[in-house]
Amino acid sequence: MMAAHASERVRVRRKPDRGRYDRAVVDAILDATPLCHVAFVSHGHPNVIPTMQARHGDVVHLHASSGGRLAGVAARGPVPVSLAVTLTDGIVLARSGFHHSMNYRSVVALGSAVLVVDDAERRAALDRVTDAVAPGRSMEIREPTARELAATAVLRLPLDEVSAKVRTGGPNDEPADLDLDVWAGVVPLSTTAGGPEPADDLRGEQPVPRSVEQLRQRWA
Amino acid sequence: MMAAHASERVRVRRKPDRGRYDRAVVDAILDATPLCHVAFVSHGHPNVIPTMQARHGDVVHLHASSGGRLAGVAARGPVPVSLAVTLTDGIVLARSGFHHSMNYRSVVALGSAVLVVDDAERRAALDRVTDAVAPGRSMEIREPTARELAATAVLRLPLDEVSAKVRTGGPNDEPADLDLDVWAGVVPLSTTAGGPEPADDLRGEQPVPRSVEQLRQRWA
Repeated sequence: MMAAHASERVRVRRKPDRGRYDRAVVDAILDATPLCHVAFVSHGHPNVIPTMQARHGDVVHLHASSGGRLAGVAARGPVPVSLAVTLTDGIVLARSGFHHSMNYRSVVALGSAVLVVDDAERRAALDRVTDAVAPGRSMEIREPTARELAATAVLRLPLDEVSAKVRTGGPNDEPADLDLDVWAGVVPLSTTAGGPEPADDLRGEQPVPRSVEQLRQRWA
Repeated sequence: MMAAHASERVRVRRKPDRGRYDRAVVDAILDATPLCHVAFVSHGHPNVIPTMQARHGDVVHLHASSGGRLAGVAARGPVPVSLAVTLTDGIVLARSGFHHSMNYRSVVALGSAVLVVDDAERRAALDRVTDAVAPGRSMEIREPTARELAATAVLRLPLDEVSAKVRTGGPNDEPADLDLDVWAGVVPLSTTAGGPEPADDLRGEQPVPRSVEQLRQRWA
């Protein structure tokens, strides 16, 4: 009975079943955090950089420095990229090393990213990246200057080829291992926001804004 | 006085200064989490995948599935890769969108990864990956079987070309923005481990092992 149960759990969670292509799952993961890793080829060598993303319908906007390598490649034309967003939910400890795992939610998107040159789209995308960092923040701050806009690149990646993987639950041990004297289970991991720390140079009695409250709710 | 102070902070934290090449800083970041993102080129297109890494001296071992794309590329010879490890420590809210940022610690390594074929190195590397997930765990569990070893690939990446970036502290606003009625500061983010959740199929009274205690200390 225990073995049958364990075997069923293996089948349900085995790798091919971790791939989920439901766009609602993809969108929920992309919307859960702005942090992403973007891979691109520069001078024939793969590069990966951490950066910020914000989804808008069927596209993802990527933030990049105008002087950075990704923007440099994109300035010459559409740039093939791979985007990953990964959220870790727990560490899975099994009776064997082989079945150790993480509980996670991840999205990988492949496609061709293009530099956004339209000024209105670029401003809107930058606002969305700011709001992905702290919901509603773009309404609380001043408009960007021409110099700031010039120093910031935005890339647009259509969500054409995208997949999500989600792993949940306990270890999938081999039935023969269940009698070993080894503890097995999950240690959950969660990323949470602490209390807001005002800037040293904050003047007067600025109240903590709504964006910070919403940010803290997201990372509660 | 405030403006001079803010200006000094800008200089200290401006991007070129975020790059740190001190190997002790690199090692501390790599050793803080096994989760990494690896970029490689497959069929001419960049790919990025989340996977597990463990540092050992001047090399990083990467865990991969034998049936996966990365192992497939590596089976044909050394594979150019880029590795990123990123830890997020806080969200930095500035008076302008441009100066919004994250506090983070990140490492990016570039190099050529090779498939580990030596059986002893592969076993040792797999133990180190397991121990990177939960310190000392490899001593608590059974040895891998031949079938499990065959299903697991390990890549070795020398830490030749590697850099770390660390951002700490509050926002670096423009001096002219300091009089705006906008809250600015940092919302710290931390990833913490919750209480261990025993597997449904755990038999008898297995005590929570030392590896779980150490894991929880790491993510405290």
